[in-house]
Amino acid sequence: MKKHNFYAGPSILPQYTIDKSIEGIKDFAGTGLSILEISHRSKEFVACINGTIALFKELLEIPAGYQVLFLGGGASLQFAMVPMNMLNKKAAYLNTGEWASKALKEAKLFGEVVEVASSKEKLFNYIPKNYIIPADADYFHITSNNTIYGTEIKKDLDMKIPLVADMSSDIFSRPVDISKYSLIYGGAQKNLAPAGMAFVVVKEDVLGKVSRPIPSMLDYKVHIKGESMFNTPPVFTIFAAQQTLTWLKNIGGVKAIQKKNIEKAKILYDEIDRNRLFKPTIADPEDRSLMNICFVMAPEYKDLEKPFAEFAKSKGMLGIEGHRSTGGFRASTYNALPKESVEALVSIMKEFELKN
Amino acid sequence: MKKHNFYAGPSILPQYTIDKSIEGIKDFAGTGLSILEISHRSKEFVACINGTIALFKELLEIPAGYQVLFLGGGASLQFAMVPMNMLNKKAAYLNTGEWASKALKEAKLFGEVVEVASSKEKLFNYIPKNYIIPADADYFHITSNNTIYGTEIKKDLDMKIPLVADMSSDIFSRPVDISKYSLIYGGAQKNLAPAGMAFVVVKEDVLGKVSRPIPSMLDYKVHIKGESMFNTPPVFTIFAAQQTLTWLKNIGGVKAIQKKNIEKAKILYDEIDRNRLFKPTIADPEDRSLMNICFVMAPEYKDLEKPFAEFAKSKGMLGIEGHRSTGGFRASTYNALPKESVEALVSIMKEFELKN
Repeated sequence: MKKHNFYAGPSILPQYTIDKSIEGIKDFAGTGLSILEISHRSKEFVACINGTIALFKELLEIPAGYQVLFLGGGASLQFAMVPMNMLNKKAAYLNTGEWASKALKEAKLFGEVVEVASSKEKLFNYIPKNYIIPADADYFHITSNNTIYGTEIKKDLDMKIPLVADMSSDIFSRPVDISKYSLIYGGAQKNLAPAGMAFVVVKEDVLGKVSRPIPSMLDYKVHIKGESMFNTPPVFTIFAAQQTLTWLKNIGGVKAIQKKNIEKAKILYDEIDRNRLFKPTIADPEDRSLMNICFVMAPEYKDLEKPFAEFAKSKGMLGIEGHRSTGGFRASTYNALPKESVEALVSIMKEFELKN
Repeated sequence: MKKHNFYAGPSILPQYTIDKSIEGIKDFAGTGLSILEISHRSKEFVACINGTIALFKELLEIPAGYQVLFLGGGASLQFAMVPMNMLNKKAAYLNTGEWASKALKEAKLFGEVVEVASSKEKLFNYIPKNYIIPADADYFHITSNNTIYGTEIKKDLDMKIPLVADMSSDIFSRPVDISKYSLIYGGAQKNLAPAGMAFVVVKEDVLGKVSRPIPSMLDYKVHIKGESMFNTPPVFTIFAAQQTLTWLKNIGGVKAIQKKNIEKAKILYDEIDRNRLFKPTIADPEDRSLMNICFVMAPEYKDLEKPFAEFAKSKGMLGIEGHRSTGGFRASTYNALPKESVEALVSIMKEFELKN
């Protein structure tokens, strides 16, 4: 039976990435060695990391003055690195979910943190608007896509102070006007590569403005100077990222994938809105994530939650249970998820409706 | 032509690890999904990480009271995490090379650091002995194997204060009396797995004694509580580590591999000592590393350095150039390097001698 991978992360990667990973593990770039056992200082791997950074910049049209870094530790380490490198006195955070809350919590170790708005009282089911950002804040932090709750800020905000975004789960899903951001970071394990790496896009001139001593491994300037090779980088993960970005370029880049993502999300949201058994958790279409589509059973069918979960699993739908903290359902529709998987899910939702 | 992988790290892994990695990328544990795209919360991966930790503990005979962690960021991040979590007032460091120096430098951000001894004045070509460790130091830090300079502390030291060791390049190469250490850490990319992960073995009762606020991702207690899943761990790297440890167990564990490592090192050191063209950089056999065997051209044959490097490469010997900072040659003879590769290197050293 065909399996459909709706996991929220680590999550589906293009078959191209899988196939090329196997090739690279057998023989990397004609070296006779595996990508798993080659030195990061070999000329073949140096070409690989430089090529990956170049593709990253090309696909997102990153302007001059920005650096792309690949770091160990995941996005959660960035929750601490961002304030460590950028927070002098005060930072502003928008609280739109669990990850935004965690980022905010870590920042508090380094200075005053203003939560400009929060949707927590409504279980994070909308993106707050019309909040006031302190003009003297060192930066404003947003989580552009909220993987757990299924909301997304799909537009690049205009800010008067440096804008920092955690784009772990929507990077490369749409064109981004990088010039509006001072720093973008995220974990690799959604639209980029296997788990175990964070990417950072940073405008160089925002760095070097804090006076606290920063351990070398947590200092963006050190990694910029070392060209992401201050220490041994996650070699295989970078190789896999190069494959995913090559695939993305081959299919037309972020504009082309955005069109597909909008189309896939529409198919599923339309069915959730139509099917009498289900209810979307995010009412406002403007706030609905194109990457993580959350829904629950309609109140009168609450007792069908477990039966639907089991039915879906029996039909090859993997990873559609909601996050441990929310329950319900979540279908993640990342770049690599084919339209056929969304159609398959919609089809079994219809089938389940007919049965009940 | 057969390639021999003498890289210092990332470095050779068992063929078993390579083969099983390919299998896992095709289909992980019968899930129908790749190990590259499966959720870390799936029951199959939870079984994998728990199994890897169990094997890690079994092979090193880790006593009760110790935790094993798999963290992102590499050993270099541990240079900061160790003092952040353990340094209250004063720490003692033994300076035996570049990595030891880097560890010492990072510790200085967190308190007083006493360098109890250093072999820097002799290009780190020996392990200092008979130094005095301040009795009031919070811990004493050593680098058990010095990858760049080719020295190794092959015995477990008896200390009156907590002993911390960076075992990046000799973990699993010999039995270790874990009870003599409070914390052992290292990068995975030598005897364990591909690059992109650090392992930490920590005695729980040494933690929680510092008062500084610690960011969550840098707090060992947080990772212990999260069972290495506080954030998304490097899933594939952990899977690969499980394969390497399974291979090691199958061939008899650390006692068996130690015997092989001693044998391999003897073959190469004997040839370096015998061959009139070459000279070992480490004179005292007690201090000679079994993992990284360093040598240079004898003074009268200095001009043969480049020709030998090229000759060796033409014969399929990869990665035997010394570190960028030292020059000369270094053959890394990690667990997975077969005796045949050492014999092949010795054979071309003899051939080169005959030619010159």
